[in-house]
Amino acid sequence: MYPESIRSLIESFKYLPGIGEKTAERLAFSVLDLEEEQIELFSESLLDVNNKVHKCSKCNTLTEEDLCYICSDSGRNSNVLCVVEDTKSVFLFEKLGMFSGKYHVLEGLISPLDGINPEDIGLDKLLDRVQEEKFEEIIFAFKPSIEGETTALYVKKILDDLDIKITRLASGVPIGADMEYVDSLTLERALNDRKEIE
Amino acid sequence: MYPESIRSLIESFKYLPGIGEKTAERLAFSVLDLEEEQIELFSESLLDVNNKVHKCSKCNTLTEEDLCYICSDSGRNSNVLCVVEDTKSVFLFEKLGMFSGKYHVLEGLISPLDGINPEDIGLDKLLDRVQEEKFEEIIFAFKPSIEGETTALYVKKILDDLDIKITRLASGVPIGADMEYVDSLTLERALNDRKEIE
Repeated sequence: MYPESIRSLIESFKYLPGIGEKTAERLAFSVLDLEEEQIELFSESLLDVNNKVHKCSKCNTLTEEDLCYICSDSGRNSNVLCVVEDTKSVFLFEKLGMFSGKYHVLEGLISPLDGINPEDIGLDKLLDRVQEEKFEEIIFAFKPSIEGETTALYVKKILDDLDIKITRLASGVPIGADMEYVDSLTLERALNDRKEIE
Repeated sequence: MYPESIRSLIESFKYLPGIGEKTAERLAFSVLDLEEEQIELFSESLLDVNNKVHKCSKCNTLTEEDLCYICSDSGRNSNVLCVVEDTKSVFLFEKLGMFSGKYHVLEGLISPLDGINPEDIGLDKLLDRVQEEKFEEIIFAFKPSIEGETTALYVKKILDDLDIKITRLASGVPIGADMEYVDSLTLERALNDRKEIE
């Protein structure tokens, strides 16, 4: 029914998560309204992302260079390492602009139920790096979940001999949340981690 | 912050209607999880849509050929012409599979407020075609709106001398709608167009 190239563009949009037939059709037709240069840039940047982007050889953040811009920035605080579960987290923190240390990106979180075991998330590379660079503090910035907790405990155990201060992000009641909608685990954590008002 | 090609892919997704920064970021990152062939197909189909797709020389439906598959299908009923406001409507009707006649796609609807006047929507081409092919019935399938009504009335006027039956889609209460949520214009139309139960 659709011309072949429109059909194939619809299928391509459907590869993306959360995009079904109807949305893919709407997006494919909207491409027809774009300027020629916009379409060419779109097409080219897809190929570029595929061909040029890879993991930083030191910290695994996505980059087009050998070292990402954070690892190659000598102005950053190299005493603190923030360990995250994916590259997106790096960009989230960078947007916030409040952390000036270094990052290390794991290849996901330990999740035995999904078949992801400790040896699957690139801990060797982290351990090698931590032994080589002398960090004073390592921050675990995983999502607060069973997987996040498991990974944090496991990584803490293998780093324990190295005498480095290990911290995790605070969890608790999010700013602006209605108390009645806060789940019990979060509330429990918020209570345990309560801080003295100074 | 982002590698250049990811940044440029995010910008490209933002060209599309309804896609803001956050969604564009999510989509761009999800491209990184696609297979290489999927990305290449995606990239190629964008260029193809731009280079190969154009309007059918007879009816304006989007096609990769000179004539679209509907115009070149001799098995269709060439006595009935369905006039629509855009190519998408053609595909909507084709999906439904209940109409076996021909189509003609206008270049939008008359909308003086938006600066779209009768001479802007390609009526010459429609008139030429109607004079050449001998249709018995012409169906206006525009959206029920001021613009749709205006266009229908205007086109009916210029086709009036040709002695062709001119119809429009029924409008009324949509199937499954709660009566209390039906707007008054729709209800008025439904009442005026009421049908005898046979």
